[in-house]
Amino acid sequence: MNLKYADRMLGEKNDVVKEALKLTAQPDIISFAGGLPAPESFPLKEMAAASQKVFEEKGTNALQYSSVEGLLALREKIAKRMSEYHNIHADAANIMITSGSQQAIDMVGRIFLNPGDYVVCESPTYTAAVTTFKTYQCNFLSIDTDEDGMMIEDLEAKLADCPNAKVIYVIPNFQNPSGKTWSTERRKAVLEVAEKYNIPVLEDNPYGELRYEGEELPTLKSMDTKGLVIYMGSFSKVLCPGLRCGYIISCPEVMDMLTQIKQSTDLHSSTINQLTILQYLNDNDIDAHILELRAIYKHKRDVMLDAMKKCFPKEAKFTYPHGGMFTWVELPKEIDTQELFPKAIARKVAYIPGATFFPNGNVNNCLRMSYSSSSNEKIIQGITALGEVFTEAIAALKK
Amino acid sequence: MNLKYADRMLGEKNDVVKEALKLTAQPDIISFAGGLPAPESFPLKEMAAASQKVFEEKGTNALQYSSVEGLLALREKIAKRMSEYHNIHADAANIMITSGSQQAIDMVGRIFLNPGDYVVCESPTYTAAVTTFKTYQCNFLSIDTDEDGMMIEDLEAKLADCPNAKVIYVIPNFQNPSGKTWSTERRKAVLEVAEKYNIPVLEDNPYGELRYEGEELPTLKSMDTKGLVIYMGSFSKVLCPGLRCGYIISCPEVMDMLTQIKQSTDLHSSTINQLTILQYLNDNDIDAHILELRAIYKHKRDVMLDAMKKCFPKEAKFTYPHGGMFTWVELPKEIDTQELFPKAIARKVAYIPGATFFPNGNVNNCLRMSYSSSSNEKIIQGITALGEVFTEAIAALKK
Repeated sequence: MNLKYADRMLGEKNDVVKEALKLTAQPDIISFAGGLPAPESFPLKEMAAASQKVFEEKGTNALQYSSVEGLLALREKIAKRMSEYHNIHADAANIMITSGSQQAIDMVGRIFLNPGDYVVCESPTYTAAVTTFKTYQCNFLSIDTDEDGMMIEDLEAKLADCPNAKVIYVIPNFQNPSGKTWSTERRKAVLEVAEKYNIPVLEDNPYGELRYEGEELPTLKSMDTKGLVIYMGSFSKVLCPGLRCGYIISCPEVMDMLTQIKQSTDLHSSTINQLTILQYLNDNDIDAHILELRAIYKHKRDVMLDAMKKCFPKEAKFTYPHGGMFTWVELPKEIDTQELFPKAIARKVAYIPGATFFPNGNVNNCLRMSYSSSSNEKIIQGITALGEVFTEAIAALKK
Repeated sequence: MNLKYADRMLGEKNDVVKEALKLTAQPDIISFAGGLPAPESFPLKEMAAASQKVFEEKGTNALQYSSVEGLLALREKIAKRMSEYHNIHADAANIMITSGSQQAIDMVGRIFLNPGDYVVCESPTYTAAVTTFKTYQCNFLSIDTDEDGMMIEDLEAKLADCPNAKVIYVIPNFQNPSGKTWSTERRKAVLEVAEKYNIPVLEDNPYGELRYEGEELPTLKSMDTKGLVIYMGSFSKVLCPGLRCGYIISCPEVMDMLTQIKQSTDLHSSTINQLTILQYLNDNDIDAHILELRAIYKHKRDVMLDAMKKCFPKEAKFTYPHGGMFTWVELPKEIDTQELFPKAIARKVAYIPGATFFPNGNVNNCLRMSYSSSSNEKIIQGITALGEVFTEAIAALKK
């Protein structure tokens, strides 16, 4: 037909993640590729009860259109939790319900990015954020990271040269893909730089409540006195993702822009799903539930990392996450994890090649592993197989 | 803070509809402004049963992430209905589940529109589509309409002059806002023009199944031999809107583009809501339910139109819809329905001033009325009050 599409659709497609995730559908593959939460952790009985109660008590209101910003009672509930748990003091008016955090990323891109603008991000960073921002035809200032987070010198140097930097996108807790957590000092320093250049910071915190060791660190939003931080939270990782329910906290000016876009994008998020989550929160102790989640994921991490220590060759370095769902493996520079991928698949194990997490490319020797949704047995079996794949690849280098 | 937003956010805001809808929240206002489906028509008991069954039978799968395109079984079910009911023969692979039709409009804008491109639409047309397309910084070729739909001469003349026309957006059945339905001949003729210029047609058909008199007319999609028609359907008007579940049917090439954008936008639509609708469709006869809906809306239309005939001055013309939820009122040219609006509100009745439905402005003497969600008593009361407002306005002209 030769239809004329918008320029934003003409870039090359990044199908690495999509292809990797397709493999998770094959039942004989042990997949560390996806970042699915453990289904056995979902509070199924409680959600079913909440849903039934919503039908009984809210009746047809549960099935009707509702407000663009989201249900007021749910936004008030979130405001209360944020204040108690994250030291973020926001009114319901500063909170919007989104159809998952993915929608929040998309909407923030939409309100800030002109073609040719720059998004500042960690190197590596969350692939799906990069893919989404790219639909706004932006470029990336990819900032070097160390054990404490974004490196301030690199951030300053790159921002000084870039008048079109419009958003700083960060995941300070148990980062996707690296599993690393920023230090408090680094959080403060990045916020100072953002303030100096007056650039909004999109703080993505889906895993923040899944800390299973070490002390809580302050969110950037809790230290934000200028209203520059746009905070993204989600029920996907602490409750379940299938209801597509996340939230944004921002200053009124940004909230006004986001509301316009939300209305254009899907009018509002599902009424009944918002009511069901609210009912769950009213009838259950989500903090007790989160404690259970932490125990589940801590154990899975320990199983995976113990197996890695035992089975991976000494040349394979990996991060030790204090929470969340991911660890990040670095192989010798000569090894391309994309090229190695078919060999892993041949041994019935999958990961995500690391190159896809670098928006400007160039790093090919890393990979992301998720321990969140495999059984202990499968984790050990998969890591054993991967250890063999890595050992062979390293041996081949020495020939 | 003086943040730098994207250029797409800098246009003037159209808050007319938002402001009008806010008034519907006041309990003492009789609102004909919104287009909410009648809540008493929602199959509450059946939906509650479907939901409960999903929790019991699907367990944690109902709460997990699911595929970008939507659940295969639901897409297959829709394919079957489309084939039986609308003479549209599509595979599940050509169907995507969206978070309501609003999301479909947004995604189609996103894949086709560069800044400065043109969207071809009826005059008048659905405001929220215009607002959404405008976020892609497009312009509008607003085509004159008569009783049979878009006027072909005007369409041809405008397209011949416009190399950047990228999408033709149409609502052939019980149009929003006019309540009019296109003739079969006009449908064929518009499709021929679209084929001649190779421009995709976005066929928005949320009300098509709510026909309560006259014979079914073929959808454009059912006559589409070139794969140029992108069809949008929704469960919002035939079941309930609170689950945010709609669908797009398109050729594989367009589907591929839409899938990329869907993934960026919100990953996928709610798993549990898709399963609940599927369960409802498996366990109930939706066609029998739709027959009930038709009877409900036919009666409401009759009540409103009978009251209009009785209470409106003879200078007020209005359309006679054969289905759907809207009628369109035309007052003498000298009357501006936006200026008249406060007088209607003073009498506790609301409509939507018509100017907002014309993307290029210029028509100020019309208004949209919805009879879908008011009780018979309120309809009569509201129409009586509006009749007085109109009669006074017309009398004032003659002074």
